[in-house]
Amino acid sequence: MSIKPGYTRPLDLKHGRVDMTHGSGGRAMAQLIHELFAAEFGNEWLAQGNDQAIVPPPGGRLAVATDGHVVSPLFFPGGDIGSLAVHGTVNDLAMGGATPLYLTVGFILEEGLPLADLARIVRSLAHAAREAGVAVITGDTKVVEQGKGDGVFITTTGIGVVPDGVNLSGHLAQPGDAVLVSGMLGDHGVAILSQREGLAFAADVVSDSAALHTLAAQLIAACPSLRLMRDPTRGGLATTLNEIAVQSGVGIRLDEAAIPVRPVVRAACEFLGLDPLYCANEGKLTAICAAADAPALLAAMRAHPLGQDAAIIGEVIADPRCFVRARTPFGGERLVDWLNGEMLPRIC
Amino acid sequence: MSIKPGYTRPLDLKHGRVDMTHGSGGRAMAQLIHELFAAEFGNEWLAQGNDQAIVPPPGGRLAVATDGHVVSPLFFPGGDIGSLAVHGTVNDLAMGGATPLYLTVGFILEEGLPLADLARIVRSLAHAAREAGVAVITGDTKVVEQGKGDGVFITTTGIGVVPDGVNLSGHLAQPGDAVLVSGMLGDHGVAILSQREGLAFAADVVSDSAALHTLAAQLIAACPSLRLMRDPTRGGLATTLNEIAVQSGVGIRLDEAAIPVRPVVRAACEFLGLDPLYCANEGKLTAICAAADAPALLAAMRAHPLGQDAAIIGEVIADPRCFVRARTPFGGERLVDWLNGEMLPRIC
Repeated sequence: MSIKPGYTRPLDLKHGRVDMTHGSGGRAMAQLIHELFAAEFGNEWLAQGNDQAIVPPPGGRLAVATDGHVVSPLFFPGGDIGSLAVHGTVNDLAMGGATPLYLTVGFILEEGLPLADLARIVRSLAHAAREAGVAVITGDTKVVEQGKGDGVFITTTGIGVVPDGVNLSGHLAQPGDAVLVSGMLGDHGVAILSQREGLAFAADVVSDSAALHTLAAQLIAACPSLRLMRDPTRGGLATTLNEIAVQSGVGIRLDEAAIPVRPVVRAACEFLGLDPLYCANEGKLTAICAAADAPALLAAMRAHPLGQDAAIIGEVIADPRCFVRARTPFGGERLVDWLNGEMLPRIC
Repeated sequence: MSIKPGYTRPLDLKHGRVDMTHGSGGRAMAQLIHELFAAEFGNEWLAQGNDQAIVPPPGGRLAVATDGHVVSPLFFPGGDIGSLAVHGTVNDLAMGGATPLYLTVGFILEEGLPLADLARIVRSLAHAAREAGVAVITGDTKVVEQGKGDGVFITTTGIGVVPDGVNLSGHLAQPGDAVLVSGMLGDHGVAILSQREGLAFAADVVSDSAALHTLAAQLIAACPSLRLMRDPTRGGLATTLNEIAVQSGVGIRLDEAAIPVRPVVRAACEFLGLDPLYCANEGKLTAICAAADAPALLAAMRAHPLGQDAAIIGEVIADPRCFVRARTPFGGERLVDWLNGEMLPRIC
């Protein structure tokens, strides 16, 4: 990926723009790859410069996850599409108990994108990858005409290795198990929305976008009965728990008062007619374990910087209809359905 | 990926259209995944239904390749964006000597896309994956508003395993080596162009889109001195050979009369002012080996259905400037430079 033909002058990363030649496969694309991507992502595998990267035998089961990122706006409080593209995929690996190792990055760029924006995104992506300990080992760049894309779309694929003895899956929840979350819900969704809607009172809500692999590893070590972890992104916690309920053939009963939500996020949701349980998160996880181990799992969450606001929020129950329900703070009970329709497009 | 919530009625794959709810993470997305993607791609790993797929230890070095596909039009003679998304990535693995095993698929859909078009593409992708022996183990779907995309973009990542003893790379070409191609050049580029420009005389040119992994495996078995293989896609053979020349620090001298090009492709290129050496291919490879082994490598190519028109087209020479040159049929010599600018946007 880092083959360098001769150029007359360096890429103008301050004032230049993406044009169709940057996706041509020719000299301009090689220059973009060399002067931006290889400079920021550089590692021994990327430096092979072939159409595929070849890496050592990983020595265990592979975990593989892929995510397209189309978030709008590209830059938001707490992150941007570059860091999000790392966190989203690293977290999908981590939720399976995997140690993330490698990342591939596919860019689809819109003609006319300022190269300065692209450089900012690439640097943010590279920084997030370094922080998460994953190497960007290969990639691809395509350019589409103005009006056929929207600035930048990024599809990342992550590869990790699952240690022996770790077996987490959405179908393993059992009646009696406890349901936990690692922190405040809805920050990412409201942070994005505040940018779009110009909500002054929510302007200090920051996306929780973060890599959860070290938190996940600590939870696995602390809790032998850990059944599964999942990061509630699009569709929020409500949809994630419905997925798990169907996979495991169980019901879930939540205690709504126990679910941690920032007051400003709750206020923004009320103002907009949204429910924080359906708002996207990019740095939170939900975990399910045997009830007896729940206090230990909670303590392990709270011992990690990304889990300080963790809480036990409900229990798994027997229910052939696989319903998720919540006891409301007023003593009633409501059905927490799958997300129907679209609450907030292009949140990630 | 195949969790099935209750629906009121099945997806209308004949008359329905993609809408924003199909990317929401909620019920509509789960239905799309269940009724289309899981139905077409079904395998044990995809059926895990988690945010990551976990597969057995592959038992060797991994090859990893990723490719975004933005081809326009979506359907063309000889293929469509679905089959292309498989072939492009499988071939990048095969060129590294890998046996392709797994594929991830990320869709970015434009609101309003007919579901019938999506279903046709998904079926074509599934068919091509089965033919190539790769399992689609995980995926992702995003939807963008009308006017922010162009129907369908597909980013595929392939994972394969490289057998012990196989070491192919673009930096291994040596002066004296022979350069071969596996067949007629430029078919894919001209097939796409004929659709856009309405070139009647080129209307029977069909894309060469094909999976090259079995051809590649035969060449590895037949030729101990095989240095490298590469598929000349965007930028064509000219750009691919320039990449190799720079990687290996050598020059390459081609015999232009020996390069196989269909008369109709040559005529279309002349008419349009294009050079077949810069036209994209999606089912051809170029290979470099020791001169003494070239006849055996050529015979191995010709023994495979995808290599019947193979030819020895040139030699590797010492040249610190890393130039690629061609002896013209008229006895002269011309520089075959990197592709400059953009010849044919969104060819793949």
